[in-house]
Amino acid sequence: VSFARAGYDVRLWDPAPGAARSAKEYVKTLLPEMEEAGLLGTRSQAKVCELISAVSTLEEAVSGVCHVQENAPEDLQTKIQLFAELDALAPSDAIIASSTSALLPSAFTEKTPGRTRCIVAHPVNPPHLIPLVEIVPAPWTDEATIARTEALMLDVGQSPVVIQREIDGFLLNRLQAALLDEAFRLVDGGYAKAQDIDACMRDGLAMRWVFMGPFETIDLNAPGGVRDYVARYQGMFRRMTDTMRHSADWSGAVLNHVEESRRASLETDQLQARQIWRDRKLMAVAAFRRKELADLSK
Amino acid sequence: VSFARAGYDVRLWDPAPGAARSAKEYVKTLLPEMEEAGLLGTRSQAKVCELISAVSTLEEAVSGVCHVQENAPEDLQTKIQLFAELDALAPSDAIIASSTSALLPSAFTEKTPGRTRCIVAHPVNPPHLIPLVEIVPAPWTDEATIARTEALMLDVGQSPVVIQREIDGFLLNRLQAALLDEAFRLVDGGYAKAQDIDACMRDGLAMRWVFMGPFETIDLNAPGGVRDYVARYQGMFRRMTDTMRHSADWSGAVLNHVEESRRASLETDQLQARQIWRDRKLMAVAAFRRKELADLSK
Repeated sequence: VSFARAGYDVRLWDPAPGAARSAKEYVKTLLPEMEEAGLLGTRSQAKVCELISAVSTLEEAVSGVCHVQENAPEDLQTKIQLFAELDALAPSDAIIASSTSALLPSAFTEKTPGRTRCIVAHPVNPPHLIPLVEIVPAPWTDEATIARTEALMLDVGQSPVVIQREIDGFLLNRLQAALLDEAFRLVDGGYAKAQDIDACMRDGLAMRWVFMGPFETIDLNAPGGVRDYVARYQGMFRRMTDTMRHSADWSGAVLNHVEESRRASLETDQLQARQIWRDRKLMAVAAFRRKELADLSK
Repeated sequence: VSFARAGYDVRLWDPAPGAARSAKEYVKTLLPEMEEAGLLGTRSQAKVCELISAVSTLEEAVSGVCHVQENAPEDLQTKIQLFAELDALAPSDAIIASSTSALLPSAFTEKTPGRTRCIVAHPVNPPHLIPLVEIVPAPWTDEATIARTEALMLDVGQSPVVIQREIDGFLLNRLQAALLDEAFRLVDGGYAKAQDIDACMRDGLAMRWVFMGPFETIDLNAPGGVRDYVARYQGMFRRMTDTMRHSADWSGAVLNHVEESRRASLETDQLQARQIWRDRKLMAVAAFRRKELADLSK
């Protein structure tokens, strides 16, 4: 949807019979709400739909394209095999990007003959609502491949960031890991209830982070900017981080607390309904950002 | 403003001559935009203004009140002294709460005769836009003091969380510390540019956290809820957190990178203007949450 609403022709292919067609049907169900929320830009539902087609062979899918976005299961052998095929079939000037969130590009493109045009472009689910795309080059990925992938993502209205060198988890999941680890430690240590961690983030920290991020936040929180902030507060934060040098066992006793807290707010059989709720709220956040925060530099 | 817009009589006092009156004048300048954004509820600017008065003595400020909110500088001796005075002057059934973000309540209320009614209620700046309030009891704080403080904060439309036992930094700053430490490590290690950390948070992670928080987010990210999520992903996250056992020196070489990145987006002499921008955007976020996300359980 992200590509089609920006006017790109999109071809869907999946080895499972009928899966690509089902994917297109699923996309159709998203469009009415997206249009209403102003998330299709100037394009009509019909036009976006027309730009997306399900095809039945990989050859057909990649013929004549400028960009391939691979979404196979997170299995190394599958990716190695698929990248070899894609490299053989796609036009020589097409970029081959993987959506992987878990594998490093060097692990599955090393032996690919056209490895300089291979890259990771990791979207965040659901990509039609969340703009971030993590672009991760392998050591042998061309500068031009990086630049063209970044330009394409910008062109379709996503927010690309280029990771400077490979690291496990890329940026988003590492930031999430650091935060979750402290959240589990605080509940495990008996300092906080799980629902209070959520309230701290939702009704506190995230209200700034959602339009500035952590560095701009601290840059504006001291009269002299970030250097002044670090001079004033590094000592205070260091006393805290020095007590964070161990992981709680997330699956230990703390998980009983967290699960009880979650199940007290939401029964297991309500999880699916709540996921629908989440996607509706996320759409409201996306629409709000598009309208109110449109140009964050202003 | 938070108390007055909920209909409470508020008396401001500051030992510096004229400071309380200036504070009231400052509040007046906030009201037009707040009213326009729907952040004054059903009350008019005039009514809210009328409910706030600047008084010239501490006696006058606390006479007959149900709640005292202390906002002195973050200095231990100042707080010890002030709490002794407040305890002597305030009605015997009034709660005495400190806004401190840095000091533990046990450190400045131990010798206060009425220490069972003393507590920390730490708001997040600016409290008229950010609802979170961290309530931190000392070991000797009465259950009734905790419950009444929580009830008052709920009544005025803030989002109170009760910390279960004292810990340095409370919850919000500890979560921020964990996240910032990884942000500095990633820039220090040459993996990310500072502006890309901000984009990851702003255009990725925070879009869910701003209405769910981290635990609800993972609870909805696995078919079987949080237990299922931990079973699937703890190993992956543990590999990441195992490489986070050291702090970057925030004031070392990494600070040059972060500062260059920030100053490239924003010159030092623009910091103040950007703070005004931030407060305007924050007001938009607050108004959005009040309208669109009003009841997060729905």
